[in-house]
Amino acid sequence: MGEPRTLILVGIGTGDPGHLTLQAIRALNGADLILIPRKGENKADLADLRRAILAEVLTNPATRIAEFDLPVRDAAHPDYRSGVDEWHDAIAATWARAIDVHPGAARVALLVWGDPGLYDSSLRIAARLAPAPRIEVIPGITAVQALTAAHGIPLNEIGAPFIITTGRRLRDAGWPPGVDTAVVMLDGECSFRHLDPAGLHIWWGANLGLAQALTLAGPLAEMAPRIVAARAEARARHGWIMDVYLLRREPAARPPGQG
Amino acid sequence: MGEPRTLILVGIGTGDPGHLTLQAIRALNGADLILIPRKGENKADLADLRRAILAEVLTNPATRIAEFDLPVRDAAHPDYRSGVDEWHDAIAATWARAIDVHPGAARVALLVWGDPGLYDSSLRIAARLAPAPRIEVIPGITAVQALTAAHGIPLNEIGAPFIITTGRRLRDAGWPPGVDTAVVMLDGECSFRHLDPAGLHIWWGANLGLAQALTLAGPLAEMAPRIVAARAEARARHGWIMDVYLLRREPAARPPGQG
Repeated sequence: MGEPRTLILVGIGTGDPGHLTLQAIRALNGADLILIPRKGENKADLADLRRAILAEVLTNPATRIAEFDLPVRDAAHPDYRSGVDEWHDAIAATWARAIDVHPGAARVALLVWGDPGLYDSSLRIAARLAPAPRIEVIPGITAVQALTAAHGIPLNEIGAPFIITTGRRLRDAGWPPGVDTAVVMLDGECSFRHLDPAGLHIWWGANLGLAQALTLAGPLAEMAPRIVAARAEARARHGWIMDVYLLRREPAARPPGQG
Repeated sequence: MGEPRTLILVGIGTGDPGHLTLQAIRALNGADLILIPRKGENKADLADLRRAILAEVLTNPATRIAEFDLPVRDAAHPDYRSGVDEWHDAIAATWARAIDVHPGAARVALLVWGDPGLYDSSLRIAARLAPAPRIEVIPGITAVQALTAAHGIPLNEIGAPFIITTGRRLRDAGWPPGVDTAVVMLDGECSFRHLDPAGLHIWWGANLGLAQALTLAGPLAEMAPRIVAARAEARARHGWIMDVYLLRREPAARPPGQG
């Protein structure tokens, strides 16, 4: 065998083709093969979006595009972590099959929503491939950045830390210790409803970067029911929704000895 | 007066022109005026880099470029926060003067290192301008993303939160509560030296996106002196350095009841 295959994880941002970086466009045009996952009927328009993005930036006629069906995670698995591990094994097998159809493809690119480093499984799935490919990562605009840009707000207060966490963790552990700003991702359940809203402000965004983007912001007490309603309505209309939000605690609501 | 002026804060990434997004390139070419700050002699090459980036992507002959000198922060100010506030006032006055020279410029763009939302002052400075301009934010690749891409690692563990914090906070408050991953920015003092290194791994990067990029990774106990030396050497050579690092705590080193 010659050189090991190179797998390029290309962050594409959150759906706006304008999120693509010059580096990403160069990587896509330098690939022999680009893999596009299909995620079941509901998210069909996300595969469409990936196709539309490629149609806009791909100029190399030699680059092949291959679509493949992603296995579905067993959401009923008794152990969340094991369920995720098994799902990643299954996805790695699917990638391997999709790549094996093109034995001559030395550079294979995968379009990754957002950034391959942030709440994305591609690096962990890639580590399961045998023989191990060389991995290259092209960073992309994340939903967190699309959120703060849409609202025109900074992520952090001056010199202050912030946490990025998940809806599950917010429900299980409450307000995170040691910070006054929390960004919440992977939250299918509007977990902000589990917090005491006193002194909290929320900046929420859904489907940021897409034509159907939504934003809402204000005191959590007032905005929570409006966000729950807007989210349910958008989800019903499209069959899916991707949302993210930033919570900030007012100085007056901070525990003594902080800030 | 007619329409309010629009100020576009354009995230340009960390120096690699390949970090520019299509959205950023469009915004720059749609601007009547682009402001480039000069930050004193030592960082002259950063102004050069901004000029080189514009030379690469600017195709609109009507777009004007204006350079201006940034005031220097009084690092000896007895109150850090007030010192920053006064510095931001002074920068806002400088922006206003630079813009007033071009009264016909309806769309003014500012090139922002990284992303305007992450440890950047541009939004706070822009809020001081009178009359208040319309603000648009174009997200850009951050040093955090350049770091994880260069090392090929995920920011977060599966379903786990992480904190983004500063060197000052790490020195003053130690390991942040409730997380096993911390990204440290704005650290001129290798503050990781103030932590007990047992069970900690570090992924460090300096000047990521530039030709002189450096990366080091490994157990903190072993890497700390090597990073201190590499950082000092690079800083002496260029007169400045921009670095960022990620610290992760091994499962065995986590306090009981976590992870």
